[in-house]
Amino acid sequence: MLGLAINLPAQSPALMPMPSDMKLNGGRYRLDDGFRIAVKADPKDDILYPALTRTYQSLNRRTGLYFHQQRITTADNRSDASFQVTVSKKVEPSVGANESYTLTITESGVSLNAMNTLGALHGLETLQQLLQSDSAGYYFPTVNIQDTPRFPWRGMMVDVARHFLPMDVMLRNIDAMAAVKMNVLHIHLSDDEGFRVESKTYPLLHQKGSNGEYFTQDQIREMIAYARARGIIIYPEFDLPGHCRSWFAGYPELASAPGPYVPGPRFLIDPDDKKPLTIASILASPSPTIDPTKESTYKFLDGLFKEMAALFPAPYFHIGADENNGVAWKNNAAIVAWMEQKKLANTSALQAYFVSRCYAIVKKYGKTMIGWEELNSPDLPKDVIVHKWLADGDGGFLKAHGTPAEIAAKGNKVLMSSSFYLDHFMPAYIHYNNPYLPKEINPNYLGGEAAQWTEVADRYNAELRIWPRAAAIAERLWSPVTVKDVDDMYSRLWRTSRYLDERGLQHLNQYETALRNLSRGANTALVRPVVEVLTPLRGVKKLIAKMTKSSVYSLPSSPNQQVSDILPVESEARYRFRKDVEVYLTTKDPAAEARMRQQLVSWRSASAAYGSAIAGNARLAEVASHATDLGQLSTIGLDALDRLKAGSPYRADDLKTEQALLDKARKNTAGEVELSVIPEIESLLKQKLIPEPKTISMF
Amino acid sequence: MLGLAINLPAQSPALMPMPSDMKLNGGRYRLDDGFRIAVKADPKDDILYPALTRTYQSLNRRTGLYFHQQRITTADNRSDASFQVTVSKKVEPSVGANESYTLTITESGVSLNAMNTLGALHGLETLQQLLQSDSAGYYFPTVNIQDTPRFPWRGMMVDVARHFLPMDVMLRNIDAMAAVKMNVLHIHLSDDEGFRVESKTYPLLHQKGSNGEYFTQDQIREMIAYARARGIIIYPEFDLPGHCRSWFAGYPELASAPGPYVPGPRFLIDPDDKKPLTIASILASPSPTIDPTKESTYKFLDGLFKEMAALFPAPYFHIGADENNGVAWKNNAAIVAWMEQKKLANTSALQAYFVSRCYAIVKKYGKTMIGWEELNSPDLPKDVIVHKWLADGDGGFLKAHGTPAEIAAKGNKVLMSSSFYLDHFMPAYIHYNNPYLPKEINPNYLGGEAAQWTEVADRYNAELRIWPRAAAIAERLWSPVTVKDVDDMYSRLWRTSRYLDERGLQHLNQYETALRNLSRGANTALVRPVVEVLTPLRGVKKLIAKMTKSSVYSLPSSPNQQVSDILPVESEARYRFRKDVEVYLTTKDPAAEARMRQQLVSWRSASAAYGSAIAGNARLAEVASHATDLGQLSTIGLDALDRLKAGSPYRADDLKTEQALLDKARKNTAGEVELSVIPEIESLLKQKLIPEPKTISMF
Repeated sequence: MLGLAINLPAQSPALMPMPSDMKLNGGRYRLDDGFRIAVKADPKDDILYPALTRTYQSLNRRTGLYFHQQRITTADNRSDASFQVTVSKKVEPSVGANESYTLTITESGVSLNAMNTLGALHGLETLQQLLQSDSAGYYFPTVNIQDTPRFPWRGMMVDVARHFLPMDVMLRNIDAMAAVKMNVLHIHLSDDEGFRVESKTYPLLHQKGSNGEYFTQDQIREMIAYARARGIIIYPEFDLPGHCRSWFAGYPELASAPGPYVPGPRFLIDPDDKKPLTIASILASPSPTIDPTKESTYKFLDGLFKEMAALFPAPYFHIGADENNGVAWKNNAAIVAWMEQKKLANTSALQAYFVSRCYAIVKKYGKTMIGWEELNSPDLPKDVIVHKWLADGDGGFLKAHGTPAEIAAKGNKVLMSSSFYLDHFMPAYIHYNNPYLPKEINPNYLGGEAAQWTEVADRYNAELRIWPRAAAIAERLWSPVTVKDVDDMYSRLWRTSRYLDERGLQHLNQYETALRNLSRGANTALVRPVVEVLTPLRGVKKLIAKMTKSSVYSLPSSPNQQVSDILPVESEARYRFRKDVEVYLTTKDPAAEARMRQQLVSWRSASAAYGSAIAGNARLAEVASHATDLGQLSTIGLDALDRLKAGSPYRADDLKTEQALLDKARKNTAGEVELSVIPEIESLLKQKLIPEPKTISMF
Repeated sequence: MLGLAINLPAQSPALMPMPSDMKLNGGRYRLDDGFRIAVKADPKDDILYPALTRTYQSLNRRTGLYFHQQRITTADNRSDASFQVTVSKKVEPSVGANESYTLTITESGVSLNAMNTLGALHGLETLQQLLQSDSAGYYFPTVNIQDTPRFPWRGMMVDVARHFLPMDVMLRNIDAMAAVKMNVLHIHLSDDEGFRVESKTYPLLHQKGSNGEYFTQDQIREMIAYARARGIIIYPEFDLPGHCRSWFAGYPELASAPGPYVPGPRFLIDPDDKKPLTIASILASPSPTIDPTKESTYKFLDGLFKEMAALFPAPYFHIGADENNGVAWKNNAAIVAWMEQKKLANTSALQAYFVSRCYAIVKKYGKTMIGWEELNSPDLPKDVIVHKWLADGDGGFLKAHGTPAEIAAKGNKVLMSSSFYLDHFMPAYIHYNNPYLPKEINPNYLGGEAAQWTEVADRYNAELRIWPRAAAIAERLWSPVTVKDVDDMYSRLWRTSRYLDERGLQHLNQYETALRNLSRGANTALVRPVVEVLTPLRGVKKLIAKMTKSSVYSLPSSPNQQVSDILPVESEARYRFRKDVEVYLTTKDPAAEARMRQQLVSWRSASAAYGSAIAGNARLAEVASHATDLGQLSTIGLDALDRLKAGSPYRADDLKTEQALLDKARKNTAGEVELSVIPEIESLLKQKLIPEPKTISMF
């Protein structure tokens, strides 16, 4: 590994998201032990003062200096303090507040000014991202920043139902969200696989509806307080009426088909079922669904919504409403008779009826209702927020329910998660270039939410799955529409990843831990060069492969410990190699050539050593064929470099052989992973950089 | 790094602690997707069933298999299940219960039998440690184990006052304690630097007595429940009367000198103080101390003890009582007058009076009082547990207050933490060979506690500081006195470290994260070979160096981010090298020689590259002189190997030069670290293994 490090040149600070206005002035403000904060703010601002203390302690730790302040309080008002903070007004976190701030750093000090608490929190995060070091120590670049977000709603949805995510994962995720200026956490608290919050009103929900893993109400309150302190609101989703298998374990009377039920994947019939499913059979299957015709159903929901509306103070309440195919309803004669009696033409009308009943309850408890886009209908009340998730034209099976423009024109507010699904294993630029996100300004365009579903993710890889890619989505939602340079985004994204590591996020450690575990005590240095250029198959290929093989793979206890589960979705090693290919093909830069050669030789030898490195290790053997491909492709790459340098063209025969090896590698999906550097080797072969694809198939 | 891996031969399972009786039978029980648990137990055992579920899920994750059970319940009783569990009786965690179990693994299945819940928990931990893998997959070795502990009290004390440790660190530590069969967690909740638990009775204790970091009562309850589920009790320590600066911030009337006070190191006078202290001045200083002469003091303590005795259900309550030099009392005329009036001859008598008053309150609330050994006195009630921590004869400044035998003979129970202080940076064998731990059986010898103080530790390195060394202490307290082979212990300790990593402990990740952060984005592979053979200075050298320089270094917010803070206390690379030196000097084994040569060459080149690797990095430069030493010593080592092979003796001149380089390296304490491989290089030079020292100086 020695010598392989590419020390990127000193760069502008890796801010993410980019501020709306920034001017770097070329100087440096140096930190030393005497670094001090002074504040002018509402002395009762119980969000601001702890945030200042945290920021101060974080800078203290990262610099290894010995600052003198212990805890920033109203007594901290020295006019000679290096960092002057002025905040006009104390506010609570909310969507739509003024979030602007001004941050000025000169060679003699730092000043942060904000209209209110929320702007100040953002400014503190920007300041922390500005910390850099050189041989003389730590400094902030001198800069003038005026910053304000593009969208008021910069959210993240986390599914804790399929695989539960415990408190420490949730809290670290909140820290990371705050670091990239996200302000809304949407927790998908219930699904077929689990009901994940304690209900005192209906205790069988969490007791029988989970495998024992759920948030207590105390924990929810702790999480909300933790998020509040970081400028983030938390709202719950209870996914109705079609993702409720777990509810029926304790309350089978809610279901439109008799039980008994146990929590588990939607299409699970028998826990020992290994019969293969098909996509068609899944879509047409009578999955467990709430009975919307009984008044007792609404009485139950009233009791639950009342309890949960009080537990979650945020003004939003998500009822799901997605993916109900109506088959369970059609299979129930009483429901069909009821529909006829009520003159409901079809199950869509019945779903609209159900939604309208939920709406009344949500409203009664003072909340704004949100639902996935399937709840959209002409009669939908205007104060319901429509949460887009479908993406027409990418080969999806389900059709979108109106475009953002159509929904907004109708008078409903729109939240966008289409093409923001992190669990689709897409590279960050796909989310960054999200074609569904409207470019024009419209008060009904609230913003969006990155979404992490957990059929094939759990506490051991959730941070690795969400980060750093969510930072690219955060930037898309915060920064001006003009901030769109993908190369620039990536150069900051990799540094943001290391910054989040420094701040305590466990995404890098999750990879390292899993690699150590998979290596079973062997030296990870032997397998790392191969593994680090593998990436999980894009789209839902892995999910569908697992689902159609057996429902046992997506049980809420099923492990996610294959090589494909532990890999980052994007390979930084591949990114760096690609940059060198690009530079070399453009400029013939000898340093880039040297690095490429070193990398190719390293891959070739790692490929040759892989077999003995994994001897006796069945799980790492799963991707051994990719190691073989990597060796062959490295040889092709080295040969291509020789020919490029010598100006000696390929004979058609050679090209054919080499192209065949590339094609073979491209078809190799062993272990549900792919070798990421195939386009770069092919670029060397073709002496022209192959651009990244604009879209990537989900299937 | 390629090729440097030493693949240790397949070994017996790395059990830690070793069972009291074990017979390996040479076969293998293979796990597959069909692995199932069946239980016969009290259906109301709400500790056992969740523990079975956790064990099952942990095995599921570690094997990457797809087990079919979701959650182990009373319905799981199939007689054909692979793993049969029988537990006679449900019990709550406690000290002194029967903790025995029998674990039998044959080629056809696993059976665990225990008298009660606690034995079953231990058996489940043993089973998890037995998991091994080969090219065919995962297996348990066939074995008969009958196991029971040597001491009933196998504890750990964690100081959360000096630097606060948040919930996730505490919970992971509880998991690791359970993994090595520790059963008591003692939380040092208050000290001069902080009061770390919410008090509803006296809220200024945590509000003014901390930097905002403390456990809420909800969190304490959650922690206790988490520990209970793992067979561990938690009891609190409130360190009185001499470690109470933090209390006085909110309640200065408790102090024997007027305030105002702010939480901070005991000998802090001014937060900006940089005047150097000396050990003598520290020992003679009037540190803040409770006024024991006022009745209002005891009224306050009654209120607090009442609240905390209810919060912590365990039957023990620790009042500290250590390190009170009485100077603050002597400086207060009113206290001196009161002593004269009460005919108390000296401050020791006044301390005994204070202890007796505390005893009455603790007893009133139904608890057994524990105190550090300074509370020992002839009149101490027999139901007080004396907690030994001083170690006579190691150069300590304070004299021990009776030997275990003397205390036990007097009728008091004894807990041992002498020579179990993990924060003394001692290698594991020093704790393992603890000379203070009585070898004979006596019902008054309860056992002991590993202790981690946090003047120079915090959430970012606490796991690295405690583990894996605490596992050696756990073995000392659990396994028979005959289990004492240090080599065997180490061979299991390193594997236990990786096992704890696999179970979720963050000790390895803490090192890796800190190394990445210190490397500031540079390739850690460039600095790792040097850093991984450095170890922190042994004893209290670092603490004293910091304390006597300025109190600012041990503020509760001061960072622990020097190289010396992030290093494991013992170097595994050094251990492996030492093993090779030992083998080679004994047997001239060519494989050992080859590995040593490869290691020495690698060190030499890493040494040569260190300067450029850390260019621009002031913090890694702190240990650059050790890199230079490592290079010179590697050359000496290679030369010694050549001479050993050729049988060519050193000339006296050469030896003198090489010895001088070794001596220079030995004196190098730059960055408060030492190069760990000096004895091994010297062993090669002298052609004879230099044994590990029996004792290591604290100063």
